[in-house]
Amino acid sequence: MSEDVSVASGLNCPIPFEATDRVQLGHGSGGKLSASLLRERFLPHLSNPALDQLADAAVVSLGGEDIAISTASFVVSPLEFPGGNIGSLAVHGTVNDLAMMGAKPQFLSAGFVLEEGLPFDLLDRVIRAMAESARAAEVLLVAGDTKVVERGKADGLFINTAGIGRLGSSFRPVPENAKPGDVVLVSGPIARHGMAIMAVREGIAFEAPIESDSAALYPLVERLEQSVGADVHVLRDPTRGGVASALNEIAAASTVGVVLDEGSIPVPGPVAGACEMLGLDPLYVANEGVLVAFVSEGMESRALEALKAHPLGRDATRIGRVVDEHPGFVVLHTGIGGRRIVDLLPGDQLPRIC
Amino acid sequence: MSEDVSVASGLNCPIPFEATDRVQLGHGSGGKLSASLLRERFLPHLSNPALDQLADAAVVSLGGEDIAISTASFVVSPLEFPGGNIGSLAVHGTVNDLAMMGAKPQFLSAGFVLEEGLPFDLLDRVIRAMAESARAAEVLLVAGDTKVVERGKADGLFINTAGIGRLGSSFRPVPENAKPGDVVLVSGPIARHGMAIMAVREGIAFEAPIESDSAALYPLVERLEQSVGADVHVLRDPTRGGVASALNEIAAASTVGVVLDEGSIPVPGPVAGACEMLGLDPLYVANEGVLVAFVSEGMESRALEALKAHPLGRDATRIGRVVDEHPGFVVLHTGIGGRRIVDLLPGDQLPRIC
Repeated sequence: MSEDVSVASGLNCPIPFEATDRVQLGHGSGGKLSASLLRERFLPHLSNPALDQLADAAVVSLGGEDIAISTASFVVSPLEFPGGNIGSLAVHGTVNDLAMMGAKPQFLSAGFVLEEGLPFDLLDRVIRAMAESARAAEVLLVAGDTKVVERGKADGLFINTAGIGRLGSSFRPVPENAKPGDVVLVSGPIARHGMAIMAVREGIAFEAPIESDSAALYPLVERLEQSVGADVHVLRDPTRGGVASALNEIAAASTVGVVLDEGSIPVPGPVAGACEMLGLDPLYVANEGVLVAFVSEGMESRALEALKAHPLGRDATRIGRVVDEHPGFVVLHTGIGGRRIVDLLPGDQLPRIC
Repeated sequence: MSEDVSVASGLNCPIPFEATDRVQLGHGSGGKLSASLLRERFLPHLSNPALDQLADAAVVSLGGEDIAISTASFVVSPLEFPGGNIGSLAVHGTVNDLAMMGAKPQFLSAGFVLEEGLPFDLLDRVIRAMAESARAAEVLLVAGDTKVVERGKADGLFINTAGIGRLGSSFRPVPENAKPGDVVLVSGPIARHGMAIMAVREGIAFEAPIESDSAALYPLVERLEQSVGADVHVLRDPTRGGVASALNEIAAASTVGVVLDEGSIPVPGPVAGACEMLGLDPLYVANEGVLVAFVSEGMESRALEALKAHPLGRDATRIGRVVDEHPGFVVLHTGIGGRRIVDLLPGDQLPRIC
């Protein structure tokens, strides 16, 4: 790529606020600070082949069978939002991480940290949403734990879920598997979850409220597997950090370039409006019910057909392709013929979005 | 049992502070309020056969093999204490829950909620302790997640771990399996973890500080399995709520009575002194490296020998027995010939002990 583009990416420019000895909000962003926290604080002590995969879920062998294991903690604020609450999100987040490895989610555990004074009616709504989401995702919540901390020592309620999924023997999408020529598909309109949260937080009212897309994605994965199988090279649910961060991670892991066509990226009108109002780029806004799929070029129409056959994927579309050039970089071709680097953000666009 | 003993247990006496519409600290105690939270808030929505086992870990079938799944969130305060920190505790707590089902711990996930401003040097010590504890327990930490919340929205650092263990086909201790005639063994001196935490919290200095017993217990379980096998009927690590709560849960699950011999319960001198100073009963104080085993009467000496062959079990001893009488109740025979009910506490003796 040309030199000025490279400079604009800022990859070689040290970020001053990294030079600190304490955790910052940005370390939870899913961007560069998150990556450095993982690289500098966790991996030096905890490195092992399964953890080092750094995929959405770890793949390990147990009793001769391969399984996927994933975990996530949920600290979303507010706890309830249009389209869901922290309970449904905690189920969807973890089953989706399993699904992105091609695994069928089987079992979940749930750990709760409750703040003294949390109203039971709120807790009831959260638990009910978890139960409904687990049933819909055909996953069993089999183990749980609850701790309580004093008033002011947590923010209402945090939930951790961990999940176990079964892997078939041949369908193994991984972030390292993107290949030049692949098409990049999204299963639906982006940036809805993040903007649903932000609209509540900022008190923005729209004629129709923006609903989170939070949903379990395995049904889409199953259809992709059945229709194009191993021609699905990479799957990712672009949560924290949005589509931009997910594509950057895949470009880096596969050492390929990704080119996005701005005009083809589906952003619902109200979401685009809210993003503009708040100065946010929808490419960096979290999704909780959308997947990105890298698929062999010749399989584009079959893959899109498979996605569109399910309600969650009815607006599936191609947004870009994989190229040999600028390995590790995502480049957006804009409507007016320009292009710009879509980099990992250093820190936080939207804290506590999940 | 006699009527006055039954009344003293208070089982039929409604507890006024349960009549509230909000979460209280006592709901995290491991006592009666914890049980009611689970029964009234979680199980009505989430009930399924695996979760309803309500054991230390759920046993489920995956690909034809039985596995154990467990989770726990850790909110201990302070984060560091003599004998460990929240990191080592988060490993030991979950691998021990697996071990108590007879499962060999294999894999762990870890989810972190970090408070903005947490010093990195503290985080480093926590992660290092996790790594060392996982290595010692021969368990692989394969999946992780980190979230960050604003200053004042968490108390430094919370960790959730979930674990997966492999089960053999025949060794299946469960809380429902205690039988009249069984002897009740403990693997070592009790109440050390809770009093180590309390001593730091209350600023009590002893000549030799009380160290937490926090440790991975699978090596003891393995030895018990090898020496007496299916004659081990129940295993439990008496954490929150201590030995008293664990025995109450087992007595209720197995519909048997438990008789404890006060004089045989091993409480280290400094621990007993600290308990007296703070008005705490060591039977209710948390342990993190002690197990309780219910074993067929004829196997007592072989089981004790197996435990004593490992450093963690060198002070193993018999503390009681299982009886037909007073099913569901634990009765302590005191040194002076009296007896008293050892009931579940309603609420909290020691909040945030793990």
